[in-house]
This record gives sequence, structure tokens and C-alpha cells, in this order.
Amino acid sequence: MNYYPESILKLIQSLSTLPGIGRKTAERLALHILHAPLHEAEAIASDILELKKRVKLCVRCFALSDTEHCQICSNINRDRSLICVVENPTDMAAIEKSGVFHGHYHILGGALSPMDGIGPDEIRLRELFLRARAKDIREVIIATGTDVEGESTASYIADNLKNTGITVSRIASGVPMGGDLQYVDQVTMQRAMEGRRGF
Amino acid sequence: MNYYPESILKLIQSLSTLPGIGRKTAERLALHILHAPLHEAEAIASDILELKKRVKLCVRCFALSDTEHCQICSNINRDRSLICVVENPTDMAAIEKSGVFHGHYHILGGALSPMDGIGPDEIRLRELFLRARAKDIREVIIATGTDVEGESTASYIADNLKNTGITVSRIASGVPMGGDLQYVDQVTMQRAMEGRRGF
Repeated sequence: MNYYPESILKLIQSLSTLPGIGRKTAERLALHILHAPLHEAEAIASDILELKKRVKLCVRCFALSDTEHCQICSNINRDRSLICVVENPTDMAAIEKSGVFHGHYHILGGALSPMDGIGPDEIRLRELFLRARAKDIREVIIATGTDVEGESTASYIADNLKNTGITVSRIASGVPMGGDLQYVDQVTMQRAMEGRRGF
Repeated sequence: MNYYPESILKLIQSLSTLPGIGRKTAERLALHILHAPLHEAEAIASDILELKKRVKLCVRCFALSDTEHCQICSNINRDRSLICVVENPTDMAAIEKSGVFHGHYHILGGALSPMDGIGPDEIRLRELFLRARAKDIREVIIATGTDVEGESTASYIADNLKNTGITVSRIASGVPMGGDLQYVDQVTMQRAMEGRRGF
């Protein structure tokens, strides 16, 4: 690789550390940046530094935020009495993309996984229970993953909020829309059958 | 997209300007950078800025270089009497990767294309002819592209260096190694036939 000067090699090297960016792609990106207008290259560099400096977690729901309270927690048009519990900010982004939920979120930062040493104290469950009990919360919708860890986290939350008067619900599992039934796995099919609804 | 704070959105936006990086990939990269150690993120940013600041063109061959003379021009083990003419630094990189050439290069910075307003003065042909005539040059190997522009640039160079005593050669065209004959286009096949060699 020593047919490029040192400074290009260094950028190729550091871009290759990004997920899904191999040596060839990194080389193409580095050469693009080399030929791009200076302000474009500087924008990328400064946006990276700004991101690392500014993004923190919302003090209420632990979503990614530039400010103390995230945009959703500060939005007075959203329903404060509904909390949707997710594992990660990306899960929250997926729900927001669908545009069907207008309440608040609670980001756990993971799921219970005793095998990996992640117990109730390692994720933000205590904060969730405090939030749920302190304010006029009507419903907690559990949208943790549908794998073993997500399911047991969901059960744990449901158990803890039993007899509090708060409705606890779990997002539906079943056959994905547009999916071909023949490719659906057994567990999903079982859930789809169990969760069937009258027309 | 307003489920991410401003500083993440800005980075997603600026990463999407890179070639081959769509919105989804940019989102994944931005979130990776967010969770990566600070020094890794800072390395990418500073490598971008360093690249823009340091990389210039070699004063002799116009290759990308951090220094006045590029690594190849400063390498005393390379054959100065051989010049390989290419259109772009990436073409030079491709030849260097193969490891078969041990002379010097001359990077034109493009190919003749009258339709696009690129005449002999727009690319570094004058510099090539000066170099070829000034020093003890034995051979000029023309490795411009095999498209119309590359071919006419090659002819132009060959014409200009006629009767100078310098050997002027053109890299071979033909069937790529490992290629399947049935997928080879007619012009390439014609070149492969014309350029056939005795066993």
C-alpha cells in the first residue's frame, strides 16, 4: 500500500475501522475526500468532533440528546402518560420512523442477560419503575426485543408493575407484513396463532 | 428523521455526501462513531484535516505526495530511464499494486477530450515531453485508458515522441486473465487477436 503518501494511508487506515468499510471502500472514500472541496471535508471532520462533544443522554428517558431533556421529552404535544420501553436508541428510532406512537420513551440501554453479567442493576430498570410510579402514567408498552433476553426483560418489567394500576402491554409478535408464510419460523408462527384477532 | 438530536443528524448528512454511502449506511456509521472511543473518532477527524492540508502533487511526476518529490521519484532503486504515463493517481496505484513496474511515472491528470474542452494544454503533456527529452529516458510506456480519450491521448504522445530515439510503447489490450471468453466484448477480442504472440 505504499504507493500512497503517508497522510492518505493514515486516513484509509482510520476509515477502515468503521463497520462495513473495507480497505477498498476506505481507499475510495479517502480519494473522494482528497478531491472534495475543502469545506466539505472540514464539515465531516467537525461534525464528528461536535457529535462526540455534544451528544449525551436525556436525563428522563435516556434517549440520545444534545440537550438535558431530549426533543421528545420536551415536546408538550406528546402524551406523557404513555411510556414505551425499548432496549436501545436505534429501537426508538425504528418506532419513531413508523410514526404510530405519540407517547414518551424509556431507553433501558440493554436487556437482562445473566449469562453476560447483565442484571436488573446494569440496565435502567430502577429509573423506569421510579418514572412509572411517580407520575400519572396510564400505560407502559414494552417494546424490548423478541429474543430470549428481550422476552425475559419484558416479563421482569411486567412482574414489577403488577398491582400498580398501570396497564402493562407488550408489542405484538407475528408474521411480518408482506412476508411469505412459508419462510416464517415456528416460534413466530406460534405467536401469530396465539395472538390472532377476530375480524 | 428528527428522532435523532441535531448533532447526529448533521453528521449523517455530511457522511451521506460520500460516494456509495446512503442515508442508512450514514446512520449506522454515525451511531458507530458515537459509541466508539473518543480517540478513534478524533483520529478520523484529524486524519481528514491532515490529508487536506498535507497532500500535494509531486513536482516531477504529479503523483500524490506529502513531500515535494514523491516516494517513487525519491527512490534511488527505481529506474529513472523508464516513464509510465497514466491518467490518474488511481491508475498509478493499480500498476504499483501489481508490482511489475520499477520505473517512474508521469500522471497526466486526465485524457484528451475535445468534446469536454480538454486539449493538450489542459493535461500535463508539455511537462511529459520536457521530461522525456531532457533526461536519459530510454522508454515511455503509455498506460492511459483503453477508451476513446485514452487511446487518442496515447496516439498524441506517440506522435510527439516520434524520431526522438525514445522507445514508445503501449500496454497490451486483450482478454483479462481468469476471464470467460464468452463475456469478452468484440473490440477487446479483436485486440486480443491482433496482439497474439507465438508460444
